[in-house]
Amino acid sequence: MKLLVLNSGSSSLKYQLFSMPDEIVLCSGIVERIGLSDSKYKHKSHKYSSEATVEIANHNQGLNYVVNLLLDEEFGVVSSIDEIEAVGHRVVHGGSAFKDTIEVTEEVKSTIESLIHLAPLHNPANLEGIKVSESVFTKALQVAVFDTAFHQTIPPKAYKYAIPNDLLDDHDVRLYGFHGSSHKYVSKRAIDYLGRNHSKIITIHLGNGCSMTAVENGQSIDHSLGFSPVNGLIMGTRSGDIDHSLIFYLINNLNYDLNEVNTLLQSKSGLLGLTGMSDMRDIEAGANKGNSLCQLALEMTAYRIKKYIGAYIAAMNGLDCIVFTAGIGENSVLMRQMVCSDLETFGIELDVSKNEQNSHEIKEINKESSKIKILVIPTNEELEIARQTYRLFSERL
Amino acid sequence: MKLLVLNSGSSSLKYQLFSMPDEIVLCSGIVERIGLSDSKYKHKSHKYSSEATVEIANHNQGLNYVVNLLLDEEFGVVSSIDEIEAVGHRVVHGGSAFKDTIEVTEEVKSTIESLIHLAPLHNPANLEGIKVSESVFTKALQVAVFDTAFHQTIPPKAYKYAIPNDLLDDHDVRLYGFHGSSHKYVSKRAIDYLGRNHSKIITIHLGNGCSMTAVENGQSIDHSLGFSPVNGLIMGTRSGDIDHSLIFYLINNLNYDLNEVNTLLQSKSGLLGLTGMSDMRDIEAGANKGNSLCQLALEMTAYRIKKYIGAYIAAMNGLDCIVFTAGIGENSVLMRQMVCSDLETFGIELDVSKNEQNSHEIKEINKESSKIKILVIPTNEELEIARQTYRLFSERL
Repeated sequence: MKLLVLNSGSSSLKYQLFSMPDEIVLCSGIVERIGLSDSKYKHKSHKYSSEATVEIANHNQGLNYVVNLLLDEEFGVVSSIDEIEAVGHRVVHGGSAFKDTIEVTEEVKSTIESLIHLAPLHNPANLEGIKVSESVFTKALQVAVFDTAFHQTIPPKAYKYAIPNDLLDDHDVRLYGFHGSSHKYVSKRAIDYLGRNHSKIITIHLGNGCSMTAVENGQSIDHSLGFSPVNGLIMGTRSGDIDHSLIFYLINNLNYDLNEVNTLLQSKSGLLGLTGMSDMRDIEAGANKGNSLCQLALEMTAYRIKKYIGAYIAAMNGLDCIVFTAGIGENSVLMRQMVCSDLETFGIELDVSKNEQNSHEIKEINKESSKIKILVIPTNEELEIARQTYRLFSERL
Repeated sequence: MKLLVLNSGSSSLKYQLFSMPDEIVLCSGIVERIGLSDSKYKHKSHKYSSEATVEIANHNQGLNYVVNLLLDEEFGVVSSIDEIEAVGHRVVHGGSAFKDTIEVTEEVKSTIESLIHLAPLHNPANLEGIKVSESVFTKALQVAVFDTAFHQTIPPKAYKYAIPNDLLDDHDVRLYGFHGSSHKYVSKRAIDYLGRNHSKIITIHLGNGCSMTAVENGQSIDHSLGFSPVNGLIMGTRSGDIDHSLIFYLINNLNYDLNEVNTLLQSKSGLLGLTGMSDMRDIEAGANKGNSLCQLALEMTAYRIKKYIGAYIAAMNGLDCIVFTAGIGENSVLMRQMVCSDLETFGIELDVSKNEQNSHEIKEINKESSKIKILVIPTNEELEIARQTYRLFSERL
């Protein structure tokens, strides 16, 4: 069967078409700048790859554009729209309502809508993608896969904040966690690699957003992002953990207004605030040339990750394996090296030369003598969404 | 020689008179509710103890009241005011300017004044105490001992936040750390107990405020409180670490105003927000009776401490000893037990029966087999201030 994975952003539409259960990607692409006069699309299949600037007014038009590419007589990968039997949608915020992947119903849509206050930038676009998909793929099973669902196993002692209870009870203020499909995907692969589900794993997702998860026996039990995806690790433009009192200080003493502080912490902080650059490759290059701000930013990034490693070992009372994934985690030899140095107390010993080898597959980079395995595992959120969608599809047959 | 330790709050004056270098406390006391019509004082010496409600208009009058008690013909402990050769003042915030205890000069006072923006509740009162003391003890050496000074050895990778650099460079926004005299005092005692300065120690100060310090070779290298004393561990009424995005959520979605949120996080959160009670003894009693909110609050408190233990082991790449101190740390058998359970992975093994024994002295409560020593050490910030003041006094002779 064929299955489409759809990731709808506020002005974009990312897609991958899978053949399942063999997990072959038939094509993939993205439509960007939807609603502007110079929308762009990129599309790639084994037969054909193209990109262009076109005018795409809305998500509906965008998805129909994609359908035309899929059906193209010469380069297409399906001959009828009904060949696509399921569509898996990435939905960022499932709140506490969704603990697992679910078939889209009217009720599911209205619950996703009711969670918009928790993810005002993401859930409306995700919902729009679902609605457009229903109108285009009228016979397909529509499935919602939530970024937050993997973290619904986190216990109250870890998800609750020490603030008045009514903020949780009446207003849903708690730690939710994000990047769930990525942490789930790589932790499952690590478990397969270790050969046992009974395991203590720390997954380190370092991409545009950065987060870490403590995964005990396959379940998320703690996570570094919280109520929204801003705290925890240092990110490209996001501060990660701060002393929250500085928000009051900036407003009361330095005449910032509330929105300026929010923008500052979300878009002008992190690596960008520390170095003027937000791309880790530029910062590594800068550090190499002796730029001390870049050197310090790398140290701070690694130090924060190390502290979370220690915290999660405490949370699980042990550790079998740490996993690096996503853009920086998979590609930055230096960041992995900085994170894994001076942690012999935990039995973490990096093999420097293994760490330097390139690989597109799972890679073990610890020394033979290391008590803890250190793995690099390429993440694949689309495949995780495809697998979960296919699981529901199969159960329904 | 005799030396007075003075801790001036906004409406209070705490004091202890020491004989040095023998470290004998000659008397101690507190004047509270200064400026109100029903001010109270408590005073205690080996000869005499008294308390009463009187009217004390300001700190000057308060300190003169104290002087009269010290000089009292029948019950006093000095026969002339000039017997008091030095006064050690607790000053909460020394910013980055003061890395150590210092003799008070005009310049020192104006620097303390220039730091008021960092500690608007504390530094003005501390400064007032210094000025009043100068006018009363005209011949004594006046010394300022800063809560933040012990933490000035924390390196940039730990004290810097991942926010734009100008906020540090131009506006002093960074981690400062607090409870310095307590962490310094107990870590020195732990080092003496271990018998070597080369050591990795985590000090856990659990009182009204709560904080932890990673102390490597006698120096603070990381600390859980930051720019101001609100984040890190869960406290009586303070939230400790939160996802800062919830501040924006409360204001933008739940119609709080900025000051309400600040008050909520400072005065209505922590144990109080979770249970309706802020005193750990009440919460333990509640938990004992099956109150699930109290049970969860204890779990959350212990879990947060455990994670900081792990983080600081990572920061130091090892651990020799953890130290519990201050009201809760010294007295809560249960909290120590909850913190130290399920940390065998670090070699932390509590001896349950030793943990239950009362002691007013240093107490080792780990099992014989425990790789890590677990100590309970009564803190004594006044003695630490006295020692530092005496050190300066001696150097000056």
